[in-house]
Amino acid sequence: MASILELARSRRTVRRFQRRSVGLEDIVYVLETARQAPSGANRQPWRFIVVRDRGLKRRIREGCEEAERGFHERAPAWMKRWLREKGITWRKPFLEEAPVLILVFGRKTEPYWVQSIWIAVGYILLALEERGLSTVTYTPPRTGWANELLGVPRDYILQVILPIGYPGEEPEKPPRLPLSEIAFLEEWGNPLGGVKE
Amino acid sequence: MASILELARSRRTVRRFQRRSVGLEDIVYVLETARQAPSGANRQPWRFIVVRDRGLKRRIREGCEEAERGFHERAPAWMKRWLREKGITWRKPFLEEAPVLILVFGRKTEPYWVQSIWIAVGYILLALEERGLSTVTYTPPRTGWANELLGVPRDYILQVILPIGYPGEEPEKPPRLPLSEIAFLEEWGNPLGGVKE
Repeated sequence: MASILELARSRRTVRRFQRRSVGLEDIVYVLETARQAPSGANRQPWRFIVVRDRGLKRRIREGCEEAERGFHERAPAWMKRWLREKGITWRKPFLEEAPVLILVFGRKTEPYWVQSIWIAVGYILLALEERGLSTVTYTPPRTGWANELLGVPRDYILQVILPIGYPGEEPEKPPRLPLSEIAFLEEWGNPLGGVKE
Repeated sequence: MASILELARSRRTVRRFQRRSVGLEDIVYVLETARQAPSGANRQPWRFIVVRDRGLKRRIREGCEEAERGFHERAPAWMKRWLREKGITWRKPFLEEAPVLILVFGRKTEPYWVQSIWIAVGYILLALEERGLSTVTYTPPRTGWANELLGVPRDYILQVILPIGYPGEEPEKPPRLPLSEIAFLEEWGNPLGGVKE
């Protein structure tokens, strides 16, 4: 097994996937991992809907793209530029092309529900990498339509869609800030320096 | 190395720590891992302050406990009951007793900053477990005092404090809901069943 740091380093966000199908046992593996995450007051506010059905994936894509069009019009200038550089548009073909989607819902009445959900997402990202699978954490700008489409109670909010498959592209890892700029010792601005990994 | 699922399973939330000191190289390891996490538009909204100074830990504890007293008075009945069952009060001795604190700040002007921070926290939790270290994700009810104490710009918000050390207790893992209750196939309520790990 690779170390956590190795998995974190090798992981790339991927938006194009191979057609090769994904075993449900891999999906169960990553959700078993997510299930173990800590959560506020152990309320486990997460629910996961796994979607493999082609027609359903298309309807999810349509719901997302409709929401995206408005978002892209309203985005601030810096983000429009970033989106353009990255080639990101309102179109979300990966929602149809990925063999599997995991839709992650969070129960908005639970303490620290958003925080808990995203700890679990962090677990999922590393578990996917361990299995050689890729994803992108994609959150549509509006989500109510997903509750109707999938019969999800109103107190659960779609937090993220994870399209999952074997990577169909090998993107560069976007550069990270050096540790000296993000980690400080005892006070802001004092680099956690002089220490080798 | 253990698998991600094994690490996730073995991890416990711990509030009591051994006095044994924690090597800074372990802290660098977990922060290197966090640094690799994906974030909204790759804006890396996280900043980490590592605190080992005894006097500073005490002042952090005092800031937290002052905020906690009001929170405990206002908590809803079910949470008061849960807190009592768990023996959780406004007192946070682990903030002084843990050899190291990591304070995680998020830049509130970045897209998906909360979500990004907590993916990174998920990475940290697994990296700590890999190193035999324990923590509890503790967020004080008010946080502005921490900016003043540590010289942190106002656009960064304290999201969580991670007291880190070797475990000084071996708590049971709070039970998790079975996968059949949290993971569905194609629609809400349809268990992702019949599949072995």
